[in-house]
Amino acid sequence: MVMPKPDLAPGVPLSAVDSPALLVDLTAFERNIATMMDFVRAQGIRLRAHGKSHKCGAIARFQQAAGAVGLCCQKVSEAEAFVAAGIGDVLVTNEVIDPVKLRRLARLSGRARIGICIDSALGLERLAEAAHEAEAPIDVYVEIDVGAARCGVLTTSDALSLIDRIGKAGTKLRYAGIQAYQGQAQHLRQPAQRRAAIDVAVRRVIDLRAAMAQRGLPIGIVTGAGTGTFYLETGSGVYDEIQPGSYIFMDRDYRDNEAAPDTPRFEHSLTLLTTVMSAQPAHVVVDAGHKAHAVDSGMPAIFGCPDLVYGNPSDEHGVIRRNGDGPLPRLGERLRLIPGHCDPTVNLHDWLIVHRGDEVVDIWPVEARGALT
Amino acid sequence: MVMPKPDLAPGVPLSAVDSPALLVDLTAFERNIATMMDFVRAQGIRLRAHGKSHKCGAIARFQQAAGAVGLCCQKVSEAEAFVAAGIGDVLVTNEVIDPVKLRRLARLSGRARIGICIDSALGLERLAEAAHEAEAPIDVYVEIDVGAARCGVLTTSDALSLIDRIGKAGTKLRYAGIQAYQGQAQHLRQPAQRRAAIDVAVRRVIDLRAAMAQRGLPIGIVTGAGTGTFYLETGSGVYDEIQPGSYIFMDRDYRDNEAAPDTPRFEHSLTLLTTVMSAQPAHVVVDAGHKAHAVDSGMPAIFGCPDLVYGNPSDEHGVIRRNGDGPLPRLGERLRLIPGHCDPTVNLHDWLIVHRGDEVVDIWPVEARGALT
Repeated sequence: MVMPKPDLAPGVPLSAVDSPALLVDLTAFERNIATMMDFVRAQGIRLRAHGKSHKCGAIARFQQAAGAVGLCCQKVSEAEAFVAAGIGDVLVTNEVIDPVKLRRLARLSGRARIGICIDSALGLERLAEAAHEAEAPIDVYVEIDVGAARCGVLTTSDALSLIDRIGKAGTKLRYAGIQAYQGQAQHLRQPAQRRAAIDVAVRRVIDLRAAMAQRGLPIGIVTGAGTGTFYLETGSGVYDEIQPGSYIFMDRDYRDNEAAPDTPRFEHSLTLLTTVMSAQPAHVVVDAGHKAHAVDSGMPAIFGCPDLVYGNPSDEHGVIRRNGDGPLPRLGERLRLIPGHCDPTVNLHDWLIVHRGDEVVDIWPVEARGALT
Repeated sequence: MVMPKPDLAPGVPLSAVDSPALLVDLTAFERNIATMMDFVRAQGIRLRAHGKSHKCGAIARFQQAAGAVGLCCQKVSEAEAFVAAGIGDVLVTNEVIDPVKLRRLARLSGRARIGICIDSALGLERLAEAAHEAEAPIDVYVEIDVGAARCGVLTTSDALSLIDRIGKAGTKLRYAGIQAYQGQAQHLRQPAQRRAAIDVAVRRVIDLRAAMAQRGLPIGIVTGAGTGTFYLETGSGVYDEIQPGSYIFMDRDYRDNEAAPDTPRFEHSLTLLTTVMSAQPAHVVVDAGHKAHAVDSGMPAIFGCPDLVYGNPSDEHGVIRRNGDGPLPRLGERLRLIPGHCDPTVNLHDWLIVHRGDEVVDIWPVEARGALT
């Protein structure tokens, strides 16, 4: 169930926040937003920020106001939350196969511009059926596999065949473009590895564009990219829109990517406040484990404490050890963890505590937390 | 935020359930409850079921009605949820160091029997201060480290010193016993490994009991143990109470323990319903990733499908491949995953869909989902 909103008046210090709690450093967050907007404006490319990273209406509105053309999400229930939060343009970045969900999506079309991806004839057929209930046409993007070996059609001929079918699927569907996201490339550590992966993706897009041009088909929007590679898709000349999500927060896993020269840098704005609740001679135990942060991409770092290491997580505990000569934190002392992976970490929390320096300035609800369907 | 209660009338088939959704097979669940109760009754030992595995009032009441003496939890907010759900005896199985949380715990004492662990003089001091507000005495257990190298006092003399202080800490605190939980032993795969670890734990308890007896101190309740080792603590002759949680669900990680001969067996009652939302020649993609189930203890298994393997999880996707000659599931087909780790998986869901065979019979709220503080 939803946890009660923390009872924190604006202006109270972080010491008044109960732990564990997920904090957003508003100054770092605003700089991250500005850095990305400056970049996309200079490059003349559209930003469609991915909402799966934050699931938060306040952040989505912030991104929209800063100049994002819209939001992405992965689930229909996330789209519902973002439309309810006032976002005017929402794209579901994968196929949805369940007819009930597709009808829910169609019902959103009267309230916002709605887009969705398909990668199968059955997906299109079910979408077209559901779209009978749509008040406005739905944007349809064909997802192509650009090397991640997850979703997406594999061949140019299959993509052409699907695009052809969209045109015949009725007036409630409108071919909008190509979804070309290489998820596996985002966390390749070396810039050269990421470049090689995105080179493959770009070639796939170029092949499809050429085949479409030959048939006289409009290409529409080519969209994709994440926080690890967006500077590559942007520079490719074939992408119109990028879909990064994590740039607003920067988790430990993205920090571990070696940065490419002359690319935008982002700051850690998301941290998990935690308290030492047991102290031992050679380690201490904090009150944040699997239920407070996600370790699927490795352990969190400890903000401002390079000499401390977090490990041995269990449901509600984590062990902090020394990684140098400095002292261990004391019983009752509080630390801030930089989550290993921001997206599933945010999904564990109902509220984001927004602060400037040591001062709490706002509390944002995570409206789409738990939005799985 | 909390997701709306699924709109499912009792009696509808599982095909009516939107995916992803967490299912509880009530028949298997009831058998697991009965198997454990039969065991503890035959052994003459108390069961204090761990509520961190389910965070669900309906399940806690089920356990209480079946004969559990009470529930365990790890956070004060979980204790608040269980007391609100009607549980009469709740133990927080670790130290809590924050004075605000301790006052919240003390306020519960008028509504249920409340216990908590300490492993430091500061923890006791803060608890004693908060207990001034308690309506009834609070049970205090001294947590000792029995080999897990996490929380707990390390030496018999430190334990004696803490027990001594409890007696002087005022009338609102009552020494209740020893918390002696060996968490690391639960998932050792071989029975001999688990026995060796619990032998160490038992020797630590015996040493402390002997020192207490020599001083004429009452031992109180010795409590601990989990689903992987409870038969060992039970057979040791020094534990009065066991604290298993996962036995009601049995996740994939516990299944991978090699069973010791002549010990109770439990069935998988918890599964995650998921749908194939993209189909490729050599794999399919399902709509359940990190936000629907926890992979900290490894990948889920696929219920009834030993020839299929789940892998490559991302936020909302997982890839299913063949592990034999059988066919891949089709686009739109639904599967049930056996979560790798039940506790953090349940914490991702607001509702448990309870079924008998193919029929939905109830929907249970997960009241303490997200209860981190």
